[in-house]
Amino acid sequence: DPYLKVFTLNSNPELTQQVTDQIGVEMGKSSIKRFSDGEIQVNIEESIRGCDVFLVQSTSEPANEHLMELLIMIDAMKRASAATINVVIPYYGYARQDRKAKSRQPITSKLVANLIETAGATRVLSVDLHASQIQGFFDIPVDQLLGEPILSKHFQDKGVEDTVIVSPDHGGVVRARKMADRLHAPIAIIDKRRPEPNVSEVMNIIGDVEGRTAIIVDDIIDTAGTVTLAADALLEKGAKAVYACSTHPVLSGPAIERIENSNIEELAVTNTIVLPEEKQTEKITQLSVAPLIAEAIIRVHEQTSVSTLFD
Amino acid sequence: DPYLKVFTLNSNPELTQQVTDQIGVEMGKSSIKRFSDGEIQVNIEESIRGCDVFLVQSTSEPANEHLMELLIMIDAMKRASAATINVVIPYYGYARQDRKAKSRQPITSKLVANLIETAGATRVLSVDLHASQIQGFFDIPVDQLLGEPILSKHFQDKGVEDTVIVSPDHGGVVRARKMADRLHAPIAIIDKRRPEPNVSEVMNIIGDVEGRTAIIVDDIIDTAGTVTLAADALLEKGAKAVYACSTHPVLSGPAIERIENSNIEELAVTNTIVLPEEKQTEKITQLSVAPLIAEAIIRVHEQTSVSTLFD
Ligand SMILES: Nc1ncnc2c1ncn2[C@@H]1O[C@H](COP(=O)(O)O)[C@@H](O)[C@H]1O
Ligand SMILES: Nc1ncnc2c1ncn2[C@@H]1O[C@H](COP(=O)(O)O)[C@@H](O)[C@H]1O
Repeated sequence: DPYLKVFTLNSNPELTQQVTDQIGVEMGKSSIKRFSDGEIQVNIEESIRGCDVFLVQSTSEPANEHLMELLIMIDAMKRASAATINVVIPYYGYARQDRKAKSRQPITSKLVANLIETAGATRVLSVDLHASQIQGFFDIPVDQLLGEPILSKHFQDKGVEDTVIVSPDHGGVVRARKMADRLHAPIAIIDKRRPEPNVSEVMNIIGDVEGRTAIIVDDIIDTAGTVTLAADALLEKGAKAVYACSTHPVLSGPAIERIENSNIEELAVTNTIVLPEEKQTEKITQLSVAPLIAEAIIRVHEQTSVSTLFD
Repeated sequence: DPYLKVFTLNSNPELTQQVTDQIGVEMGKSSIKRFSDGEIQVNIEESIRGCDVFLVQSTSEPANEHLMELLIMIDAMKRASAATINVVIPYYGYARQDRKAKSRQPITSKLVANLIETAGATRVLSVDLHASQIQGFFDIPVDQLLGEPILSKHFQDKGVEDTVIVSPDHGGVVRARKMADRLHAPIAIIDKRRPEPNVSEVMNIIGDVEGRTAIIVDDIIDTAGTVTLAADALLEKGAKAVYACSTHPVLSGPAIERIENSNIEELAVTNTIVLPEEKQTEKITQLSVAPLIAEAIIRVHEQTSVSTLFD
């Protein structure tokens, strides 16, 4: 199909390669270089006039560099007369700055949505937005894909039994519920409270975990403080073993060390964010979202129904 | 004046301090930090409701980091109900990507203008935009300040005599003309041509430089290739000595080494871009644009005439 073109930027070239292999198209020819002063220089090396273009880029660390690459490439694609510019953002960075928690704070997720639209994107595809409200920050269509089926399937294939699905906070219960339904498991919720000011948080567990294998599920694991402490609390309450899973492996700062030293058996994540070699440890299993993204691209391009695929 | 507030970001804190000292206001209280994953976190630590806010930030190297800091802070200021958000961009980065020189290129200067407007800026003040067309990329008012008087004054104060002002290319003649008028000097133009494909460029000099002290003037000095070769060509044509000046000291890659090893007596630049210690060499003199910016801020805030100050 000469009218479907898939391009990559610097965040996830391997994932994009898997996606184009799966769809059966060549990778779009382009390059990103730097001028001597570090400014980004993009080159699109084939015609895209009249095409449905899909541009894959996570705004993962370094978030600002990846975001600017994306915006500049969208600008170039717009001026090169692409029919549609569909931005595939496997991991949507800045998603946690989605509201004014204190006065005079920015709402950076909304700003980023505006920037992507201003540059000229006509549609966004993303996986597990930290807050579903982010869909509403865009005036263009946003298709949200779900990582949960990939993570659930991993534990099914592994044959983990007698599970309880654990949400590490109240905000994640909907996500835990979906996995629990698929795995026919009950759920539990970690209820963090600070008994008094300046006293450290206590992890209370709502729900029965005794004798069960706990699977903690979250959308983002960043410094891994919560998940590793939650594992201890679950074992203390009689869980047989603790697994964890998360769509987006941000894994910054002390994350890897904490996970390696934790009571977690395995952390299953996806490849919405690339794990550099030093983060590829024995405990971490990385699953590919390429089939999910490839399917979504085909559906969007063919304008066929996507009801089972999208949230 | 409680309604005039000046804030800095990370590109030019010293310049901003000079500006606030000159105006006689305290620096606005704010901070820029990073979350563990490198995402920018801004905090405005005083009320700005109903204020004329001036935010100083060059989009100098690292351009993408500086630009994102700027956009996120503008967003926060907009949501904190500032009356006006006046963005002072001493050096406007990405200015050289101002047109499609080849097909399928972005026009990143226009994109950046759109991003700044989208974030919520109500006015832009900048010094020596690489192309005056960039004013037209904005739909909000843009005041362009001129570095030339500061650079001219430096050579006047130094008592450099019998000068010829040299434009390193045809695009810079208007700038050279202004300096020449002020210093009552003639002008000369470097005419680069490539005699044949794959033969290196020849520097032809249009105008008489014999027995005169040449002052090469440019808006940006980046890798310093042109300016150092131009110096050789000028000496060969009989110039007595060669000085150079430039508003924006980008000075990337081999620039410092080239200047140190060149026949240029002195390079005078301004502080629109901070020079880290390793770039502060004996040949480089840095002049402050703080008085110029302070004056412009007062004029904009008081809505008084600015005809002599702005381009
Ligand atoms: N990149 C980040 N890293 C850590 N915390 C963040 C980040 N961005 C935003 N936050 C904070 O995380 C909180 C929101 O987290 P959540 O309740 O999980 O949506 C807010 O208080 C934000 O200030
Ligand atoms: N940051 C940069 N460093 C070097 N060259 C650039 C940069 N940005 C744009 N350019 C190129 O510089 C040329 C424009 O320069 P000018 O003719 O001086 O306006 C274009 O060919 C651009 O591709």
